Amino acid sequence: MSDADIQNYLETEADDFLEELFELLSIPSISTDEAYAGEVERCAEWLADHLREIGVETVEIHSTDGHPIVYAETLTGSEEAPTLLLYGHYDVQPPEPLDEWKSPPFEPEVRDGKIFARGATDDKGQFFAHLKSVEAWLATRGELPVNLKMVIEGEEEVGSEHLTEWVEDHSDKLAADALLISDSSMFAPGIPSITYGLRGLAYLEISVRGPDHDLHSGLFGGAVPNPINELARIISQLHDDDGRVTVPGFYDDVRPIEPEEREDFAELPFDEEAFFVETGAPALKGEKGFSTLERLWARPTLDCNGIWGGYTAPGAKTVLPSTAHAKLSCRLVPDQDADVIADKVEKWLRELADEAVEVDVSVHHGGPPVITDRDNPIVDAATRALSKVWDRDAVFTRGGGTIPIVATFSRVLEIPTVLMGFGLEDDRLHSPNEKFNVENFYAGIRVSHQLWQELAPS
Amino acid sequence: MSDADIQNYLETEADDFLEELFELLSIPSISTDEAYAGEVERCAEWLADHLREIGVETVEIHSTDGHPIVYAETLTGSEEAPTLLLYGHYDVQPPEPLDEWKSPPFEPEVRDGKIFARGATDDKGQFFAHLKSVEAWLATRGELPVNLKMVIEGEEEVGSEHLTEWVEDHSDKLAADALLISDSSMFAPGIPSITYGLRGLAYLEISVRGPDHDLHSGLFGGAVPNPINELARIISQLHDDDGRVTVPGFYDDVRPIEPEEREDFAELPFDEEAFFVETGAPALKGEKGFSTLERLWARPTLDCNGIWGGYTAPGAKTVLPSTAHAKLSCRLVPDQDADVIADKVEKWLRELADEAVEVDVSVHHGGPPVITDRDNPIVDAATRALSKVWDRDAVFTRGGGTIPIVATFSRVLEIPTVLMGFGLEDDRLHSPNEKFNVENFYAGIRVSHQLWQELAPS
Repeated sequence: MSDADIQNYLETEADDFLEELFELLSIPSISTDEAYAGEVERCAEWLADHLREIGVETVEIHSTDGHPIVYAETLTGSEEAPTLLLYGHYDVQPPEPLDEWKSPPFEPEVRDGKIFARGATDDKGQFFAHLKSVEAWLATRGELPVNLKMVIEGEEEVGSEHLTEWVEDHSDKLAADALLISDSSMFAPGIPSITYGLRGLAYLEISVRGPDHDLHSGLFGGAVPNPINELARIISQLHDDDGRVTVPGFYDDVRPIEPEEREDFAELPFDEEAFFVETGAPALKGEKGFSTLERLWARPTLDCNGIWGGYTAPGAKTVLPSTAHAKLSCRLVPDQDADVIADKVEKWLRELADEAVEVDVSVHHGGPPVITDRDNPIVDAATRALSKVWDRDAVFTRGGGTIPIVATFSRVLEIPTVLMGFGLEDDRLHSPNEKFNVENFYAGIRVSHQLWQELAPS
Repeated sequence: MSDADIQNYLETEADDFLEELFELLSIPSISTDEAYAGEVERCAEWLADHLREIGVETVEIHSTDGHPIVYAETLTGSEEAPTLLLYGHYDVQPPEPLDEWKSPPFEPEVRDGKIFARGATDDKGQFFAHLKSVEAWLATRGELPVNLKMVIEGEEEVGSEHLTEWVEDHSDKLAADALLISDSSMFAPGIPSITYGLRGLAYLEISVRGPDHDLHSGLFGGAVPNPINELARIISQLHDDDGRVTVPGFYDDVRPIEPEEREDFAELPFDEEAFFVETGAPALKGEKGFSTLERLWARPTLDCNGIWGGYTAPGAKTVLPSTAHAKLSCRLVPDQDADVIADKVEKWLRELADEAVEVDVSVHHGGPPVITDRDNPIVDAATRALSKVWDRDAVFTRGGGTIPIVATFSRVLEIPTVLMGFGLEDDRLHSPNEKFNVENFYAGIRVSHQLWQELAPS
């Protein structure tokens, strides 16, 4: 059956699609900051309204102790039709540092073929592409050729804290043949990709206290522990000279990279020079004995994400501060466990601390790494859909980021995951000037449409 | 000649003295922050007005490229009368962190016999004590028995940047027999002290840059240099395991502590336990092989005064930051030179940096250490004045802090310095809840009055 009617709808409505995405992007649904809780809720309501407007029959907002979950479904009468569970998140990272944005983060604008806004690629622009193909099918055919369940949450950027329990409580409702997620990147511009592995995350915060109040560095300096110096000493001991993490037992459960996978990685058209230029760093740096792709996809890390203490305003203040703090996170690979690693890191931080300071460690949200079996019919259908739209073979990749909820769905629903990202590596997600290429937004809609066709019972 | 008239005046006016000090303390003359430049100027004008009100004949405000200098003098007709140059500063440190103050820093209040306000002891309360004894003499006798010149500047907390040139330009006007400063602490409550040595200061700021913009720690972590980890590694290498500074040549010009001085230090009634309790630290920590007093007075240090980089707000953000920064300062002892040390530290910071990051170092104001000859008649007179008011022998101490201008006066005017502090070690100068004991304020006034008497030609 020709899909000319749907293709025609997609063309006619293209401008409206972008306008609607701008509306969604203009809501500052920052889940990490309590001050924006109202905006996060407003975003959930906007989405629910929008799903109803495009003709989705079942649309529900589920309250949690945190931010709400938007659930929707549109079912076909066919018994043979497979059921897909689409996951996305409507919450976004904080936009700071604000002064580095060329246009305000919540006033989306297109420059040079790119949509600039916080959340453009992570993840509003990506899941919204699927909603637009759903709209096209419902508007032209009255139904999709597959059963589609949608979960769009508002806590991905804070570790999907309440989604896990919600998924466990609604496992029957969510039953599906596969999980579909578009919250990652293509391997390179024009190279469609299926991501079969993701890194996990363990996130900790350390506070080091020396004196119990700020002291004058002249009157006390030299005779009391300085918490910044002490914190620096601790952090400096977290890696050895080969860039390996020194936490005892850190690598115990790391799955070695198989020779075959190593070859696959090496064959990918990875442009190391372009990656280097994109970072803007004076040089690349990482664990000895591994290629850049191996370091990013299959090796665990320990990075400081933030540090603060003492006087940080302009000018000179001769204070000997009371406390110093750092945020630390580990990216994890199969088969590391986030809780086990957080525990080991915490123990090591305490062990490294001098007895002249007090150390407090708290653990933020974490998430396990995942790896998906490439060999199943829905992965095959997604591969065909991607290859058709982009007119070249899709490649299999892994990702360095973390989507903790993937592991939860996988555990609770026992279904494979298809990670089909429309973003690009240079989308600057989590950074100022996050963007999503307009071309990729529209390609995402076409891939989504093609996927429903590939999965339609013949 | 009896001084009953003056004593009577001091008693009668005591309450007014405190009220006037409160007025002075309520002006937020924060010299380190450009935003407060107007308040610094207002403070200079308030002081000049006040000096005129109490009867000082010559009162001048000297503009500089920075904050103004208040100059005043009151001369006696006697050719035999010695000339003293009183130095003080009306500028104050920033009050941050504000939330740790029990009462607002610029709304002075007395609690439990202590004046709480930013600048209470450093240095408004201390130099103001001298102005009150001047007032008493002028009100009762019409003149002082000594020639008194006063320089009260507004840039002490930013390194007295413009005072040096001003002193050089006005060396004839400032000619005197000795420099008198009350901007330090007594050795202990009730133990009057003359301070004959001060540490100097070298202050630097380091910025470490990895990527040229913030990156997502999942997509880039493991393959690029993390500026926080790199900065921590640099800082951690600034001390060896014995607490010695590793900067090459750092100790080259350090004057060894003479055995006799070591004995003097050891004989002082230093309460190490009280010092320890006052810091609130879990333990004391410093350079091996030296006592606490030696570490504070006669050994140089290197402390971090501030550090910042990446995400520092509540919650977790998985950013791999572009830059990390730290403020570092060294306390210096005779015969170290601030410029030479800043230069050596800068070179060492650059040498310690990994080639995968870019390092930028800037040098803030510094100041040389000083040491004064105890053997001269004005030091003797000050010792007698202190001993009479406190009814016990004054002791000789050194100080860990820095008053850069002391070295300038000493070099340009070639006069000895009498450092006669009325503060206490627990005054929390530069920290929240800075205070000055009411008792010490009034004792300071009486010591000042006594000193003019001791120096009066017989």
